Amino acid sequence: MITHSLTTIFNKNMAFTANINGHDVVVDTTADDGGEDTGPSPKRLMLASLAGCTGMDVVSILNKMKVAFSNFSIHIDADVTGEHPKIYNHVKITYTIKMALKDRPKMEKAVALSQEKYCGVSAMIRAFAKMENEIVIIK
Amino acid sequence: MITHSLTTIFNKNMAFTANINGHDVVVDTTADDGGEDTGPSPKRLMLASLAGCTGMDVVSILNKMKVAFSNFSIHIDADVTGEHPKIYNHVKITYTIKMALKDRPKMEKAVALSQEKYCGVSAMIRAFAKMENEIVIIK
Repeated sequence: MITHSLTTIFNKNMAFTANINGHDVVVDTTADDGGEDTGPSPKRLMLASLAGCTGMDVVSILNKMKVAFSNFSIHIDADVTGEHPKIYNHVKITYTIKMALKDRPKMEKAVALSQEKYCGVSAMIRAFAKMENEIVIIK
Repeated sequence: MITHSLTTIFNKNMAFTANINGHDVVVDTTADDGGEDTGPSPKRLMLASLAGCTGMDVVSILNKMKVAFSNFSIHIDADVTGEHPKIYNHVKITYTIKMALKDRPKMEKAVALSQEKYCGVSAMIRAFAKMENEIVIIK
């Protein structure tokens, strides 16, 4: 069995530093909540986790399919519930990518494979949120 | 309704940069998966999200209770399932903190309030993983 472990150290005010396999990531909050905005808020970090996970899948699959692409980005909009504990209950992922229009079916296949088979973060988020995605091809 | 939005841009190989409210976070993977290890892996970022979320709750609640503390850290061990999509199915959070032993009940209260009421990331992770926690007081 594989176990992922990490230690996160309290700095001051509301700031913490997570050491993730040798990489430091600072999380903080804004002055409204007693922080100094020295890093992203923890909850939003979950959305970066999602974007990175599915993004790497798509790149890997497109490379295997030998599809040429550039200008790839992933935009996420996640709705937050109103009461504590505040969770994401609807997550939309927009994949924007520059590629030949004829390769759109391959991009759709790559996204579907990520969402339905490979991306563990998507699978986890689907346990509590409705998820949808859109593909935008830039010519 | 509040919506959290972020855009994550593909750099090269397997590296992406997420811009989270003005803060850049790079995610990458190791050479085994075609990356260059220039940032943490996306899945582990979810654990940093959890640690920061519950950590900020605990700090905020201890401050409201006027409990003196220092050397606060949060260690997370998360077991990964073996098949795609690989998810976390068991997550243990260890809160280590230096405080007077008499304040242990207040620390227990702060952790319980975070886990049961305030921490949205914990609530989300509980939808797919068994969670447990431990408090270690350093004298």
